[in-house]
Amino acid sequence: MTKSTTPTDTTAPRRRRADADRSVAAILDAALEALASDPDSSMSEIARRAGVVRATIYVHFPTRTALLDAVMEYAVTQVADAMRSAEPQRGEPVEALERVLRATWWQLAQIHGLLALNTARLSAEELHRRHLPMLDQLEPLIERGQKQGSFRSDVPVVWHLAVIRAIVHAASHEIQGGRLAEAQAEPAMISTALAAIGATA
Amino acid sequence: MTKSTTPTDTTAPRRRRADADRSVAAILDAALEALASDPDSSMSEIARRAGVVRATIYVHFPTRTALLDAVMEYAVTQVADAMRSAEPQRGEPVEALERVLRATWWQLAQIHGLLALNTARLSAEELHRRHLPMLDQLEPLIERGQKQGSFRSDVPVVWHLAVIRAIVHAASHEIQGGRLAEAQAEPAMISTALAAIGATA
Repeated sequence: MTKSTTPTDTTAPRRRRADADRSVAAILDAALEALASDPDSSMSEIARRAGVVRATIYVHFPTRTALLDAVMEYAVTQVADAMRSAEPQRGEPVEALERVLRATWWQLAQIHGLLALNTARLSAEELHRRHLPMLDQLEPLIERGQKQGSFRSDVPVVWHLAVIRAIVHAASHEIQGGRLAEAQAEPAMISTALAAIGATA
Repeated sequence: MTKSTTPTDTTAPRRRRADADRSVAAILDAALEALASDPDSSMSEIARRAGVVRATIYVHFPTRTALLDAVMEYAVTQVADAMRSAEPQRGEPVEALERVLRATWWQLAQIHGLLALNTARLSAEELHRRHLPMLDQLEPLIERGQKQGSFRSDVPVVWHLAVIRAIVHAASHEIQGGRLAEAQAEPAMISTALAAIGATA
């Protein structure tokens, strides 16, 4: 009898584990979407979007802070993956930056919102550390562009990065405020960001 | 006897009124400074900076919200006055914008921080209404620049305004984070803002 239950004993936990992974992914997706559109989204609202009961969120994330931390980590990983796929190291710097922005700006804007939620709580060092998966890809691209004369080189890389982030966020903010049409926002954002860092093709 | 007290009776309320006006101004100045550097500044901290006891703040501003509202109104009036003094309507649009930005960007960045505190509470219409004293001066300048071919005219005025605001805020944020020196920030901010809106002298 012990023998006959063995397969079930190993399969059931594995299935439970897979179910839990799916719940976690659904919760993180829902939380990212909910918090990006409303930073004050409640746990109930996030649960509703994720299609789980509120208690399920608390099983995985005992506090709102734990959830915020996980969402931020998750979002940064997603954007970093998307950046990598856009190959920032490939080709002419202006084209490379345009390609990377097109592929990631919308997600970057979402992260910016999450970040605002975390700014008061986390130290500057901790925030910097969390940005590294993205910075490690963007910094070399900006530096390469400055060396090749494609971007202004009389201001530090950190300023170019701050400006790009600010313009990306402005585009998303204007769309959300209904002041800029989505179709209009992407080309305006890209041409403005390139002009702002002094891009010359 | 009634006669002899008459002068005191009219002078004392006037003096009390002048004292109160000075307290209010000191509280608003202190609150603006405190909230711009730390949005979570306590009423005690603001009282300490203003050189008054906490109870004095509550006499004039019964709630934190009432104080936030008054600080925002006060800050917008100050910036609008500074803009007016910089004469946005005078001369060549690129030069006029540069002059206005130099005179007001630091205060604009402070307001942006206050605004973030109020965004959740106020409707988009209400926020727009509160921006009018500044927008009423900047919009005509941008429009004039677009008409004269000094600024890009293939994007709406609202986008140029959003971009300028975003770049001003980025400069103040980078200074506060210690990533950009103050002396470096102003010229970088101005040249970047002008480039971003396609300024051609």
